[in-house]
Amino acid sequence: MGRIDLSHRHRVRVIYAHTDRMNTVYYSRYFEYFEAARSALLRRIEAPYAELEKAGYMLPVVESHCRYHRAATFEDTLVIETRIDEEPKAKIRLDYSVLKEGEEAPVATGYTIHSFVDASFRPVRAPAPFMEALRRHAGQHYDEEPLPL
Amino acid sequence: MGRIDLSHRHRVRVIYAHTDRMNTVYYSRYFEYFEAARSALLRRIEAPYAELEKAGYMLPVVESHCRYHRAATFEDTLVIETRIDEEPKAKIRLDYSVLKEGEEAPVATGYTIHSFVDASFRPVRAPAPFMEALRRHAGQHYDEEPLPL
Amino acid sequence: MGRIDLSHRHRVRVIYAHTDRMNTVYYSRYFEYFEAARSALLRRIEAPYAELEKAGYMLPVVESHCRYHRAATFEDTLVIETRIDEEPKAKIRLDYSVLKEGEEAPVATGYTIHSFVDASFRPVRAPAPFMEALRRHAGQHYDEEPLPL
Amino acid sequence: MGRIDLSHRHRVRVIYAHTDRMNTVYYSRYFEYFEAARSALLRRIEAPYAELEKAGYMLPVVESHCRYHRAATFEDTLVIETRIDEEPKAKIRLDYSVLKEGEEAPVATGYTIHSFVDASFRPVRAPAPFMEALRRHAGQHYDEEPLPL
Repeated sequence: MGRIDLSHRHRVRVIYAHTDRMNTVYYSRYFEYFEAARSALLRRIEAPYAELEKAGYMLPVVESHCRYHRAATFEDTLVIETRIDEEPKAKIRLDYSVLKEGEEAPVATGYTIHSFVDASFRPVRAPAPFMEALRRHAGQHYDEEPLPL
Repeated sequence: MGRIDLSHRHRVRVIYAHTDRMNTVYYSRYFEYFEAARSALLRRIEAPYAELEKAGYMLPVVESHCRYHRAATFEDTLVIETRIDEEPKAKIRLDYSVLKEGEEAPVATGYTIHSFVDASFRPVRAPAPFMEALRRHAGQHYDEEPLPL
Repeated sequence: MGRIDLSHRHRVRVIYAHTDRMNTVYYSRYFEYFEAARSALLRRIEAPYAELEKAGYMLPVVESHCRYHRAATFEDTLVIETRIDEEPKAKIRLDYSVLKEGEEAPVATGYTIHSFVDASFRPVRAPAPFMEALRRHAGQHYDEEPLPL
Repeated sequence: MGRIDLSHRHRVRVIYAHTDRMNTVYYSRYFEYFEAARSALLRRIEAPYAELEKAGYMLPVVESHCRYHRAATFEDTLVIETRIDEEPKAKIRLDYSVLKEGEEAPVATGYTIHSFVDASFRPVRAPAPFMEALRRHAGQHYDEEPLPL
């Protein structure tokens, strides 16, 4: 597998809905943040997920994992760094680190693994335009503009 | 419009995910409880929503409303009473009361209004089998079995 | 009651998690968008909700309402315009219009009504610093920067 | 570490809110099902999580993992089997298998690991009454009543 070494930083602001009565972000919400971040990465490399679906492909999650290092709560701005290290074949792996804006110690780290499937959920190889987008942006480290206030 | 006067009591147990840092059920969650309750009512009158979709119809929500009277929190068992008072035509209205099991004072009350549409989101009249199911169960007041522990 | 006539435009991008199998944003999600938008308005007028809570106040929702005019789906950028028309007393009302970026026809419109309460959920009058923030920004119509890609 | 070998089967019915436009249960929802299932197990062994919190303890998730084997969708009844294999010390691990009622092939499998902490999020050992509850029910394999219709 070829090396891709692509990363992208996306930001979300924690809303009240995401907190629980322990005053922390409920653990499953990080997987929504991961999704928002990977969709943003795909838009950035001009391979938006909605386009992939229009072309008859889907990328269902086949495995997900998260470690929770520190708590986050309401109105925290979280930076989600998504990395694609290796070229995908039948599956693609994305790694995520969640930080509070301006801090170093991670709040959470995780990964998701996705299969490429067609509209009937049959496994397929990663579509060529998707692979080309990845290779075209290999080695890049993108960082989005900060969120509005 | 004919009188239907049908009611049904469905139960949900509040999970941690539904609480927020105010230690109450987050306000939008009640609309999920309403959905669970109306789907249960439709199963009870042998007109399950999944069947309606299979027959080419959908019932998107066109209006939703909720008043919050008292707080509910983690592990509360909530009884959602759903009522259909009148025969629908192009639209159907459902009314909901949420109680804590064994108490009288409502936690929340609300309603949803839905359009009957076809698979292209074009408005249609309520399908005949759906109307027949409503009339067959008119005047009934159903109450589900309690939840497991 | 005095006139406030304050408005603010906040943007969210619809994530996959928010869609349902009808390929539309699930109806309760609009209340999360309303929350994100009103928290952004409060930050904009320098009365962030987290500060209000630190000062011992809360603003639980006592009533919520939404009309759904058109469908929205994955990767749509939605503009949520929040308006505060009148000075609050024991309660505050916020009105919301949801548009797709660059379009006129609303996707959804709604409102929420909130009580001012203390940490024991006892009703109180709107705190003075909050009222001053509202008056200081009365007549303003704020519009956030667009979201990153 | 002592052997606990405790299992419990809890059921959830998939609501429309949990589906996404791929017509499957959105991947993060399984972590909510896991939570509902582990809270049910704790109620079953007379160590309900709400009681644990009242006694000044919390069990935040420090790691979560899920593999997705097959799709589930609206109105499926899912059986979540939760297992506690080993005695916890500072951390407790729970394993989950999600099945469709009446089928053998798993829909999803996963685990969560939790720390015992006090109200200030400081790590503590598992409280004695919790350990006693686990030991008292060691070797048991509980199965809840089916859900109402």
